[in-house]
Amino acid sequence: MAENPSDRPDTEDSMRVETDSMGTILVPKTCYWGAQTQRSFENFKIGPNSRERMPIEIIHAIALIKKAAAFVNLDHKELSPKIFEAIVCAADEIIRGNFDDQFPLVIWQTGSGTQTNMNVNEVIANRANQILGEPLGSKSPVHPNDHVNKGQSSNDTFPTAMHIAVTLSLVKKLLPALESLEKKIRERAQKFFSHVKIGRTHLQDAVPMTVGQEFNAWASQIKYGLRRIRSTFDSLHSLAQGGTAVGTGLNTYSGFDREIAGTIASFLDIGFYSAPDKFEALASNDAMLEISGVLNTLAASLMKIANDVRLLGSGPRCGLGELILPENEPGSSIMPGKVNPTQCESLSMICCQVMGNHVAVTVAASNGHLQLNVFKPVIVANILRSIDLLSDGCQSFNENCMAGIEVNTERIGEYVEKCLMLVTALNPYIGYDKAAKIAKKAHLEKKTLKEAGVELNFFTESQYENWINPVDMAMPKTQTKQ
Amino acid sequence: MAENPSDRPDTEDSMRVETDSMGTILVPKTCYWGAQTQRSFENFKIGPNSRERMPIEIIHAIALIKKAAAFVNLDHKELSPKIFEAIVCAADEIIRGNFDDQFPLVIWQTGSGTQTNMNVNEVIANRANQILGEPLGSKSPVHPNDHVNKGQSSNDTFPTAMHIAVTLSLVKKLLPALESLEKKIRERAQKFFSHVKIGRTHLQDAVPMTVGQEFNAWASQIKYGLRRIRSTFDSLHSLAQGGTAVGTGLNTYSGFDREIAGTIASFLDIGFYSAPDKFEALASNDAMLEISGVLNTLAASLMKIANDVRLLGSGPRCGLGELILPENEPGSSIMPGKVNPTQCESLSMICCQVMGNHVAVTVAASNGHLQLNVFKPVIVANILRSIDLLSDGCQSFNENCMAGIEVNTERIGEYVEKCLMLVTALNPYIGYDKAAKIAKKAHLEKKTLKEAGVELNFFTESQYENWINPVDMAMPKTQTKQ
Amino acid sequence: MAENPSDRPDTEDSMRVETDSMGTILVPKTCYWGAQTQRSFENFKIGPNSRERMPIEIIHAIALIKKAAAFVNLDHKELSPKIFEAIVCAADEIIRGNFDDQFPLVIWQTGSGTQTNMNVNEVIANRANQILGEPLGSKSPVHPNDHVNKGQSSNDTFPTAMHIAVTLSLVKKLLPALESLEKKIRERAQKFFSHVKIGRTHLQDAVPMTVGQEFNAWASQIKYGLRRIRSTFDSLHSLAQGGTAVGTGLNTYSGFDREIAGTIASFLDIGFYSAPDKFEALASNDAMLEISGVLNTLAASLMKIANDVRLLGSGPRCGLGELILPENEPGSSIMPGKVNPTQCESLSMICCQVMGNHVAVTVAASNGHLQLNVFKPVIVANILRSIDLLSDGCQSFNENCMAGIEVNTERIGEYVEKCLMLVTALNPYIGYDKAAKIAKKAHLEKKTLKEAGVELNFFTESQYENWINPVDMAMPKTQTKQ
Amino acid sequence: MAENPSDRPDTEDSMRVETDSMGTILVPKTCYWGAQTQRSFENFKIGPNSRERMPIEIIHAIALIKKAAAFVNLDHKELSPKIFEAIVCAADEIIRGNFDDQFPLVIWQTGSGTQTNMNVNEVIANRANQILGEPLGSKSPVHPNDHVNKGQSSNDTFPTAMHIAVTLSLVKKLLPALESLEKKIRERAQKFFSHVKIGRTHLQDAVPMTVGQEFNAWASQIKYGLRRIRSTFDSLHSLAQGGTAVGTGLNTYSGFDREIAGTIASFLDIGFYSAPDKFEALASNDAMLEISGVLNTLAASLMKIANDVRLLGSGPRCGLGELILPENEPGSSIMPGKVNPTQCESLSMICCQVMGNHVAVTVAASNGHLQLNVFKPVIVANILRSIDLLSDGCQSFNENCMAGIEVNTERIGEYVEKCLMLVTALNPYIGYDKAAKIAKKAHLEKKTLKEAGVELNFFTESQYENWINPVDMAMPKTQTKQ
Repeated sequence: MAENPSDRPDTEDSMRVETDSMGTILVPKTCYWGAQTQRSFENFKIGPNSRERMPIEIIHAIALIKKAAAFVNLDHKELSPKIFEAIVCAADEIIRGNFDDQFPLVIWQTGSGTQTNMNVNEVIANRANQILGEPLGSKSPVHPNDHVNKGQSSNDTFPTAMHIAVTLSLVKKLLPALESLEKKIRERAQKFFSHVKIGRTHLQDAVPMTVGQEFNAWASQIKYGLRRIRSTFDSLHSLAQGGTAVGTGLNTYSGFDREIAGTIASFLDIGFYSAPDKFEALASNDAMLEISGVLNTLAASLMKIANDVRLLGSGPRCGLGELILPENEPGSSIMPGKVNPTQCESLSMICCQVMGNHVAVTVAASNGHLQLNVFKPVIVANILRSIDLLSDGCQSFNENCMAGIEVNTERIGEYVEKCLMLVTALNPYIGYDKAAKIAKKAHLEKKTLKEAGVELNFFTESQYENWINPVDMAMPKTQTKQ
Repeated sequence: MAENPSDRPDTEDSMRVETDSMGTILVPKTCYWGAQTQRSFENFKIGPNSRERMPIEIIHAIALIKKAAAFVNLDHKELSPKIFEAIVCAADEIIRGNFDDQFPLVIWQTGSGTQTNMNVNEVIANRANQILGEPLGSKSPVHPNDHVNKGQSSNDTFPTAMHIAVTLSLVKKLLPALESLEKKIRERAQKFFSHVKIGRTHLQDAVPMTVGQEFNAWASQIKYGLRRIRSTFDSLHSLAQGGTAVGTGLNTYSGFDREIAGTIASFLDIGFYSAPDKFEALASNDAMLEISGVLNTLAASLMKIANDVRLLGSGPRCGLGELILPENEPGSSIMPGKVNPTQCESLSMICCQVMGNHVAVTVAASNGHLQLNVFKPVIVANILRSIDLLSDGCQSFNENCMAGIEVNTERIGEYVEKCLMLVTALNPYIGYDKAAKIAKKAHLEKKTLKEAGVELNFFTESQYENWINPVDMAMPKTQTKQ
Repeated sequence: MAENPSDRPDTEDSMRVETDSMGTILVPKTCYWGAQTQRSFENFKIGPNSRERMPIEIIHAIALIKKAAAFVNLDHKELSPKIFEAIVCAADEIIRGNFDDQFPLVIWQTGSGTQTNMNVNEVIANRANQILGEPLGSKSPVHPNDHVNKGQSSNDTFPTAMHIAVTLSLVKKLLPALESLEKKIRERAQKFFSHVKIGRTHLQDAVPMTVGQEFNAWASQIKYGLRRIRSTFDSLHSLAQGGTAVGTGLNTYSGFDREIAGTIASFLDIGFYSAPDKFEALASNDAMLEISGVLNTLAASLMKIANDVRLLGSGPRCGLGELILPENEPGSSIMPGKVNPTQCESLSMICCQVMGNHVAVTVAASNGHLQLNVFKPVIVANILRSIDLLSDGCQSFNENCMAGIEVNTERIGEYVEKCLMLVTALNPYIGYDKAAKIAKKAHLEKKTLKEAGVELNFFTESQYENWINPVDMAMPKTQTKQ
Repeated sequence: MAENPSDRPDTEDSMRVETDSMGTILVPKTCYWGAQTQRSFENFKIGPNSRERMPIEIIHAIALIKKAAAFVNLDHKELSPKIFEAIVCAADEIIRGNFDDQFPLVIWQTGSGTQTNMNVNEVIANRANQILGEPLGSKSPVHPNDHVNKGQSSNDTFPTAMHIAVTLSLVKKLLPALESLEKKIRERAQKFFSHVKIGRTHLQDAVPMTVGQEFNAWASQIKYGLRRIRSTFDSLHSLAQGGTAVGTGLNTYSGFDREIAGTIASFLDIGFYSAPDKFEALASNDAMLEISGVLNTLAASLMKIANDVRLLGSGPRCGLGELILPENEPGSSIMPGKVNPTQCESLSMICCQVMGNHVAVTVAASNGHLQLNVFKPVIVANILRSIDLLSDGCQSFNENCMAGIEVNTERIGEYVEKCLMLVTALNPYIGYDKAAKIAKKAHLEKKTLKEAGVELNFFTESQYENWINPVDMAMPKTQTKQ
């Protein structure tokens, strides 16, 4: 991270005057932000700034909106070409990440994100004026409100930026990470396709299946997770922009809403469209809660997978020991040679965080009042963080764990041999009640099923051999192929 | 509720012997359930039974599955016509609700719902044997496991019943309740279409809009809630049945899974289909968490609506007082004549419960192990309760509150007249900074905007009259029509 | 449960007229409730009534408050002895449970619980008038507001009832259940005091300990849970009564608040006292959220214990198999002879529910406005349900599982013998790095530690024998005794 | 933040070799960390590192433990004075913050925090060796495991650091912030002691009270929040140190646990003590969940306060408008002159986050297995973040909002004059039912209570004047003084 400009000594010499409707205020001379940013920066000293900043994805998305607005306003002759060009140039620099250190505001500001919108307006105005040869702070010829923010309100801009930023994060990070993970699991499933093992229900020994089937179930969880994410795109692609202050579109002109949505869509090659009900789009953040719910479901899926992997990999000598996990770090500062399922642990901790983040989003989304939900920053920050963590966590789990998992074939073979629940295959021949008697006798007397059944005169040895075949049990010819 | 048969005195005379693989146990003579039900009933004395019972929707859904299985098994000659007919007859009686008092088990039993599956198996077997002239407890000619449960495991039956029960509850209760509510709100919106009022953001005075627009935003929230619910049907219609114990379909025959799904679909005229990956369908309950997330989003929407209504209805003399809510009950045991927004309160309490239920489902869904998630009863009980509460809550709110809301036109008119934020319409004429000066002056000096602006020489009186028109501000010609 | 009186046919003949400040309304003739109860009953048709009723503990607590108020009012000559006696007699009948079917209102009513308070006022007034020879509905000589509710508001009565009901439930149900469970676990711990086993961290083999130590850790979790519950009594014993409508105590007299708290305290022999800040006691339900947080912590503890027990009891042949759990029900409808850790499953599902209930309480408690939190019914219903479920769940787990757990001594002995982490005891002799080399060599080459170490020339056989002793490792002489 | 050393180019020249039990690995030459840190750094590329790092408070606490361990080990001659001195010197530098850039690991690593413990061990060892004239990476004379980690395991060190870090954060940040806030609110309450206003329940007009009473209720919520935090100190002061790998204290000596707890206590002048049950202290993190629950309660309290302030400050002309909040930033990018309750919004968003963090902690705390909960980093990171946010949020709210709140005396006077619920004071004179008639008549006919009552012949004008006095109603002589 580049040095935080706000850490510089604030001597008179190093400061310049910026103004807004509340009057003047000193701003570090080399900074591009203006009066409103500075006020918010001073009024909300909350958390280590490096950790608590408004996510940069939101900044980039707002800059993109400013650029799109400039295009539409130019078309309608609401901006001069000179001002248009300067705004677009400055916005592009921000989108490229050149000014990431100029957005020092934290999540914990006004609930509409107004000062973050103004932060972008101010940086663009100052940078645009600089490009046009004017000093920082001049607000002329480019004015942060009258030109950069033209036809916009924070109240429509910020939720629009939320939808853009979340969509981009999903598309660029989470979808690829999940697709890779599903693919890798399916590969392992294919590799372990015919390894017969004992399935477990209630953590108790059940009937045979294959390792491949077990892995495929995880892959299917991911597959449905992907489907769930994509099902939210109808909601996420809907943009509030054009509603301005309360949804009426005051201070815009006819068609502005559709044109800016279309412009954003073409910039990004994603099907964004103008929200049919702008009032809903400002007042509620239900679409955000919808995707948060999907991430929460995904977290539950991944928690299940991580837990299964660590259970099956438990041991090496006093656990289930069916899977052999990659050894990545020494596992203990006191127990030499210990190796732990650290990728599972990291991923499952991430899942806890995502579930917690989801509750934060739920409470925030339910607390809006009247024409504006003013919990927007906490909502989007949690969703973007969940996406980051899930994406990186899946990637890490995939590369450092899943890709290297092997099966302990000796161990799974032993389990198959001695498992009492093979008795289930006898139901069609001798009925449930007799089969239960065999299993109980074998368990109590530590015998094999065959021994117990023969002693009970329920079958002959050869009948047993014909009826019980773990491989057939694992892959009965009854399943509809996937 | 009919009298609970288990409350009867358990004297020897009133009991009969039932058996299962663990041996014999006494069961009340007049009850239809058998040994396993009785064991679970005795082993899980948890909560007032009337409150903590397994939802009856699950019982009915399991009975439906038994009936469908009997049809498929008959087709494949796995059941004799006599046994088939007796099973179907008994199942139909259960589905019709005739035996609702025969399912005394609580939610807090085994996490697979095995004993509830056996409860249905046992009641059907006993009732079928009775129909066939045999005494209760005979297990012959109809055996609960070998015939009623034929080709099934609790592990595929219970999740199938979850999907059926939740789907039916959504279709029969929640969707109609939401559709009615949306319709009613749209009607009110239409009625109040042109009532101009002051919008509020951050709870602070903002710019004009209409009461109709405000109501429509609520209706749109409901509309999207409906869309979200329907988007889960792909997941909910997928049935685990046919996977049996661990997903392999052991002890079924080829095609059983698709045939039973098709049979259920035709019974209910709903597009249920056989889950492509039975292992996933047993091991995870992600589809349940998916719909729970959607209900959670809906709860946030309804919380917002309920809060808005009570805020706008606050008063009558010391609040916002824009809406006049129906007076349903005396509001206070000490303050005479007080009337409260009780329907809003009831609905918002329901929303809290749904959010809590969702977390219960999240934790439960994330805690499955290996081939079976064993938190199924707590998951489905919470979802069914949330659906019940939301359905009835919306219905009650609709009939007893929304349908009778009126607008206090005098009050909203006063607010429009004095609101300072009308100044926003001046931005295009005099710029943001000057407009802000006017608003501040008017606020401090308790003047009108016109007075303040004229004193500041920013415009003439007639310019002001031309520029500021609340009705135009509320309905600018710029919005894309919905 | 007794028959619900409201289910009776509402023909004109079977009804009588009741009145309140809104006018007249028909009420079933044989019911003791009055107009306000009837209105709320009709206006809130939410959920199956048997499941969604206001908890009876709240009704009993309100009746107790009415009785206490009558005593204080008598002392101050605010009630005639005749009316006093009739009120007390009626209240006592309710407290004894004789009228439990007369409180048909659901949780989902007004958020202040006003109609439930009026339900009690009305039943007491009608019953008192009946005792005094007057017909139901006469409201004379005993008036529900002017006499039964004298000096009270729902706004102080309901939160007072919440504190009483929750305290009593904790004292009568949860504390004894937890104390029994702790005691039983300590007994098992004592029994298994010296059984040496391999501890596991990260689910991976770690160093030796005893089964007794493992059980004691669970007991300590319960012990601290008990301490946490008791730490909330300062908050729970504080009563809002006397604040009346908004906290000022309007319509009471000097000392009423302390006298009624003292009267309640002496009735119940529990240290209830008058809340120092009545405004806080009405406006917030923070004390409820406090105990809910403690129940949430307890749920996490019990989830851990239940999970540990099922993990250690997994098998019987393909799991860890260290503990042998009681066999309570047949575990599968398809797998004969299967036995599952059903008590663990029930308890852990309860823990999910408690965590969910806690979130419901959190959202509700955070949503109060100004002088009154109007989410009181949902708050107290969740807490009382959590207490019920935890109490019964612990009791059931205790009797049906913990009390019968045995150790598989053969299995734990095998694990101790082969565990590689015994190598840890070598650190002080040869250092961490060399010890790690031994463990790795033994693991890769499937050797014993002794073999590996001797081959590496890190020690002689006899040194190894001296240094490594699992019993000493399990009980080093270094621990401060508990 | 200082430059992240790991960002430097990793050319061969800039790297040195470090070793651990898994072999060699390259580490940036100028870094102080070793092989295990580097492995974890490479294996867990999760999130922007600046945001996702292990909280520095944990690093400092671990360094303090290392120092304390060195003292105890010196006393017992387990360390040479030379090594002791070097370790203590290095630890002190870390505690002072000199090496904050040497701890690059993220929260999302192993769930035991082992690599963070090793990170501290490695930095101390390298720094100590450097002090003693040896090159980085030499592991001699000071070895990270054999000397710095002597008598410790990550499994006892990390939870000990959690308890220390959380305690210090509470004591240094949150308690002072809350105490200041309570003090400031009490000051405002005192200032507004006798301003009579209309209380509101259900957001509806209720009876008179004073502004001071309203503010005091908020202060009492904070006061009880402080009490709740302090009630957790018994749990938080209990230290796991000395339990080593699984709780037995293997590789320590008699008394080590008590001596190191005592040493830490004396370093910090806080009553830390050795946990009586080390097994519980490793296996569970219930104490963490306990304090998280208390923070959650506090979040609900602060949400209530923030919501009340913004409701009462709503307006300026179309809201309740009772309180005048400080104007800190321009409130809108489009509505000139708008001012919003931004501090309330920031604080209430923080409360959402804390509630979400609490759920993350709940899920994590409930998921431990056997001898070790391996969700420790996510638990402590959430708690420390909640403490940071609440502390800074309260401070900001206090200074930038609460301290400057004024009362709109004119407005509250108007409300008192016209409020219908003054009628409540008539109950003792004319009874509830007649009083209700007056209120209803006045409401319907838009009259004053006096007019309505006189018209109904319920009293004379002079009686009314005698009976109704808002000031007396606001401060009845009946309340026990606080």
